[in-house]
Amino acid sequence: MMRDLGSRDVAFMKAVKEIRAGLLELAQVNEKDFTTVLIQGSGTFAVEATIQTATPRQGGKLLILANGAYGSRIIKIADYLNIPRVVLEFPENEKAPLNDIEKLMAAHPDITMVTLVHCETSSGVINPIAQVGKLVREKLPQATYFVDAMSSFGGIPLNMDACNIDFLVSSANKCIEGTPGFSYTLARRSALAKCKGNSRSLSLDLFDQNAYMEQTGQFRFTPATHSMLSFHQALKELKLEGGPEARARRYQENRRVLRLGMAKLGFRELLDDSHEGYIITSFHFPKHPNFSFEKFYSKLNEKGYVIYPGKVTRADCFRIGSIGHLFPKDMQNVLVGIEKTLQEMDIAVPIQESK
Amino acid sequence: MMRDLGSRDVAFMKAVKEIRAGLLELAQVNEKDFTTVLIQGSGTFAVEATIQTATPRQGGKLLILANGAYGSRIIKIADYLNIPRVVLEFPENEKAPLNDIEKLMAAHPDITMVTLVHCETSSGVINPIAQVGKLVREKLPQATYFVDAMSSFGGIPLNMDACNIDFLVSSANKCIEGTPGFSYTLARRSALAKCKGNSRSLSLDLFDQNAYMEQTGQFRFTPATHSMLSFHQALKELKLEGGPEARARRYQENRRVLRLGMAKLGFRELLDDSHEGYIITSFHFPKHPNFSFEKFYSKLNEKGYVIYPGKVTRADCFRIGSIGHLFPKDMQNVLVGIEKTLQEMDIAVPIQESK
Repeated sequence: MMRDLGSRDVAFMKAVKEIRAGLLELAQVNEKDFTTVLIQGSGTFAVEATIQTATPRQGGKLLILANGAYGSRIIKIADYLNIPRVVLEFPENEKAPLNDIEKLMAAHPDITMVTLVHCETSSGVINPIAQVGKLVREKLPQATYFVDAMSSFGGIPLNMDACNIDFLVSSANKCIEGTPGFSYTLARRSALAKCKGNSRSLSLDLFDQNAYMEQTGQFRFTPATHSMLSFHQALKELKLEGGPEARARRYQENRRVLRLGMAKLGFRELLDDSHEGYIITSFHFPKHPNFSFEKFYSKLNEKGYVIYPGKVTRADCFRIGSIGHLFPKDMQNVLVGIEKTLQEMDIAVPIQESK
Repeated sequence: MMRDLGSRDVAFMKAVKEIRAGLLELAQVNEKDFTTVLIQGSGTFAVEATIQTATPRQGGKLLILANGAYGSRIIKIADYLNIPRVVLEFPENEKAPLNDIEKLMAAHPDITMVTLVHCETSSGVINPIAQVGKLVREKLPQATYFVDAMSSFGGIPLNMDACNIDFLVSSANKCIEGTPGFSYTLARRSALAKCKGNSRSLSLDLFDQNAYMEQTGQFRFTPATHSMLSFHQALKELKLEGGPEARARRYQENRRVLRLGMAKLGFRELLDDSHEGYIITSFHFPKHPNFSFEKFYSKLNEKGYVIYPGKVTRADCFRIGSIGHLFPKDMQNVLVGIEKTLQEMDIAVPIQESK
């Protein structure tokens, strides 16, 4: 974070090259068939850039599979861009339903891209990206497959090619544990090659950025150099830890500790045991007269623990993440903080819910 | 740079509030009539976001005044967005010609926005933003006036309202001496209020971002938190130095030292003495059989000095900046580095140019 290099500095360009290669390695694909396009801005910028770039100006049509806030954001992006879309909305606590998807694919053979969020952070559900990818290839051979892997990439091992993914997006500051400032799209070269002239935005044109980067080793526009150099270090640390498999084990252990402790305190989870997602976990608000989420949140915040409000429309819940530079010991500490907070709110543990 | 706050942390939101107010103060305008919209990405993202947001989907038409690479970039953005535009191109070593502009305004009363680059960094020319602003108000009362002040804001004092500017763009890492990661648009509230629904991009919708920020104090999408916190500190340091006036004096002194030394070495400037721009200075390649820019550049780079190639089409030249955390002593050092480099290239000083 303290290294101040110019974006045309040879050392910086070398770091960028290694970042691009390192991300493909994490996706278990090679540089011959895939490329990394780094883009300034948050993850949403990369999601929009991918849709801007991959959808032809005429004749494009999206199939958007949506079970939460991040699926809805893709719908919003499509509407901003005036791109026709078919949407399959399904409940926030369920995985993408393959039968319904297959039916929609048959009904809309003119779909040009199918989109799915890997870990829908609204609830913590992990969608079946491999099975949906197989359907895309079988039922819509002309379409591309776009996975928003924002909160999962690097923390949930995957093989991008085996999952038939053409475009995969994530950002610097999730499972790879960098700092915010940029995001990226991993793209299948054969798919990206067809995207020249599609983007309705100069800033978000991934085709143009990729072509320029491959030609010059540089960005078209000034990147967040410090954030990229810290990400370069973060990739090294991920490797040292043992790669996504080892990181997955740490996050799973974080979640195990959290669930066990929360169950002991009397909290109920939103998702049933058929869900194995370990990125973020949703808990119902306890039905107790003294419970107020605002109070709970701010009292935890005072103790140094920041949790998330729920993003599920049909249930009052809150969320606790298990990714980032967090270890089982940190999860034990947050449980102590939660128990103390409940005491302060005059809620005895284990919580006895009212009927 | 080392402070790791969440983007919804109360301390971070306070810093953002102070940044937004501090930028308006630098522009000598008040929060009642103006607002700061911070946007993820480099300066070009804010330039495009402004055009996306300020131009209606139907009936928009730009008058683009262009004397260099950054004017050309605005043309490129308009073409990506399919926005009709009238362009006045004028030479890179000349200031915006008021008579020609006035004629064009008369010929195109349906212009909705006039754009001008304050310091055209291609050559270092400072365009007459106040005079053009006066013309916009007099001749095109329905149009807005957009100034790209990327490389000048904070280093060249200005009063945004007195110059009749409706939208002004700059980025974190120029005269305010922050680190890259975000940029911003200062907007006249009455002009921004008319922009709902204009943007063809969710990520780059300044109306939406401003509305959300004013309502919640937060960003719609994760910002580059570290870069913003360092910018918060950079604004304090600018104030401690004495504000844009004092910073202007330092940059002017940097330039004075540079010009004097370069003249002694026998270099000729691109711009004549009618130009007073002190952001960046262009020098002709010396007409000497031993001079090669590539050699000159890399030998200087080895010594720790990074200069810029020229961006002027009709003249071979290079550029040296005088902004950033640089002081007259640094400029003296770069002059020593240049003299040493010329010796290594077997070019005697003062340079005797061939006819």
